[in-house]
Amino acid sequence: MAACTFQAVRPHTLGLIGLGAIGGSVARQAKLAGIATVVGWSPEPAERAAAAQQGAVDDTPPRAADVARAADLLVLAAPPAANLSQLDALAPHLRPGALMTDVGSVKRAIVARAEALGLGARFAGSHPLAGTHRRGFEASRADLFRGAVVYVTPCAGAESGGAAREIAHFWEAVLEAQPVILDAARHDTQLAATSHVPQLVASLLANFLARHTPAGASLGPGAIDTTRLAASDPALWTEILLMNRDELLPALRALEESLGTAERALEMGDAGALTAWLARGAEWRRRVEGRA
Amino acid sequence: MAACTFQAVRPHTLGLIGLGAIGGSVARQAKLAGIATVVGWSPEPAERAAAAQQGAVDDTPPRAADVARAADLLVLAAPPAANLSQLDALAPHLRPGALMTDVGSVKRAIVARAEALGLGARFAGSHPLAGTHRRGFEASRADLFRGAVVYVTPCAGAESGGAAREIAHFWEAVLEAQPVILDAARHDTQLAATSHVPQLVASLLANFLARHTPAGASLGPGAIDTTRLAASDPALWTEILLMNRDELLPALRALEESLGTAERALEMGDAGALTAWLARGAEWRRRVEGRA
Repeated sequence: MAACTFQAVRPHTLGLIGLGAIGGSVARQAKLAGIATVVGWSPEPAERAAAAQQGAVDDTPPRAADVARAADLLVLAAPPAANLSQLDALAPHLRPGALMTDVGSVKRAIVARAEALGLGARFAGSHPLAGTHRRGFEASRADLFRGAVVYVTPCAGAESGGAAREIAHFWEAVLEAQPVILDAARHDTQLAATSHVPQLVASLLANFLARHTPAGASLGPGAIDTTRLAASDPALWTEILLMNRDELLPALRALEESLGTAERALEMGDAGALTAWLARGAEWRRRVEGRA
Repeated sequence: MAACTFQAVRPHTLGLIGLGAIGGSVARQAKLAGIATVVGWSPEPAERAAAAQQGAVDDTPPRAADVARAADLLVLAAPPAANLSQLDALAPHLRPGALMTDVGSVKRAIVARAEALGLGARFAGSHPLAGTHRRGFEASRADLFRGAVVYVTPCAGAESGGAAREIAHFWEAVLEAQPVILDAARHDTQLAATSHVPQLVASLLANFLARHTPAGASLGPGAIDTTRLAASDPALWTEILLMNRDELLPALRALEESLGTAERALEMGDAGALTAWLARGAEWRRRVEGRA
């Protein structure tokens, strides 16, 4: 166990599947932190070449399986649906004792898949609360995870969360992040509220403004801030939202009900009801401002 | 007309009804720009005292009518409903040849009231796209309007928009803003989309998060940005939203319909429809980013 701990906290060989903004940032920061060998694969040859040229990886083999065979710790950093496929494809190639994680925003599906593949003792999901609306290796940074909360979600029944603890240590010791071990189901419930619903609401407003902004109208900073998330990658977010849809559908119904409350107050000219509705949001937001 | 132009562009005596963030900022910047006399009234004695102590006003008479009697240009800078009442109350006290404007976010109601009072040749509405979520004189700044777009809305039938042109010149020459003359109805349609709906959507999300954020959950920068507007003053926004409700009710129905599109795509697991919905918002938002 001691050797395993050492290996996980500071793997000799770190493998990355995906060299975009997140995978590329893991590679850059791991190299800076002194990880001996970082190997990475991307489906895009140009991305592999850029990562090698900029010293983020030591080797970029042409096949993902070659990365899996080399790594002590393998990080799946593709979009969520591709991570599920890679988990299936690469599990047979993992070295004995090697650990595996991913960096997706939804955790139940991949944790369940790892359990089904018998990887419960070697896999835990990860979700770093760090990112960028920009895509690809050119959006990667050597300090993206410094100080960032990273949720680490163990497989069910894993022996006292061994792999999760090791992987949490990796995030903390190598990437200077703040790991928080959290059950995958609780993670997905929490992120539905704090991340996926905000994404949907920002896209809702952007959709509205795309149709209803008069030509030449000035947008204030309010409309700009409120729609910032809407610029996120639609294909990536389609995967995230669909993977968490059982959490999101009740949330959308709660939004509709709340919108109906505001609408009825406007229709009736009910200033008291409208003020109460606005005040609930204002009180919450001012408390958050104090914490943020 | 030449004397009138001079007087309006650079009034000898500027009067302010309301010394909050907006009224206080007009006073500060006008004094810095060399306006000879700035007189201001606020219902709150502490605000009058602060404005006088900090040199934003030369005099703070105890009654609003005294400000109206002194001013060459009178600016109503109270909340929208109070501005309507002040317009009624102060119209009889206006000096001959004096002009009047307001700084509210909704323009049809006050322009119609000015017309009804026979002030069509002397009144035009103003709406500076500048502000702060903070309230009161202590939130005022001497540069709040520099470079800001200010909509100026003439009364109907006003002789080739005389008052509007004068008041636009005041914003430009004294407050270094960018005035845009715009019909009040078009203003309210435009602001419903670009400002009032974003406020409602930010409050909608804040209301949701107030109820559904699990204790101890971390909020990312996305949820923070998307709800920033929700901290705005509920009483002020109740007035704004109710005054523009005929524009807002169809907008809310459009939001509901769009939310329904996203919900159906999630329910059906229709990735194509969900991506298309997200992409419409993303394309718009990325174009805006380029312009912002």
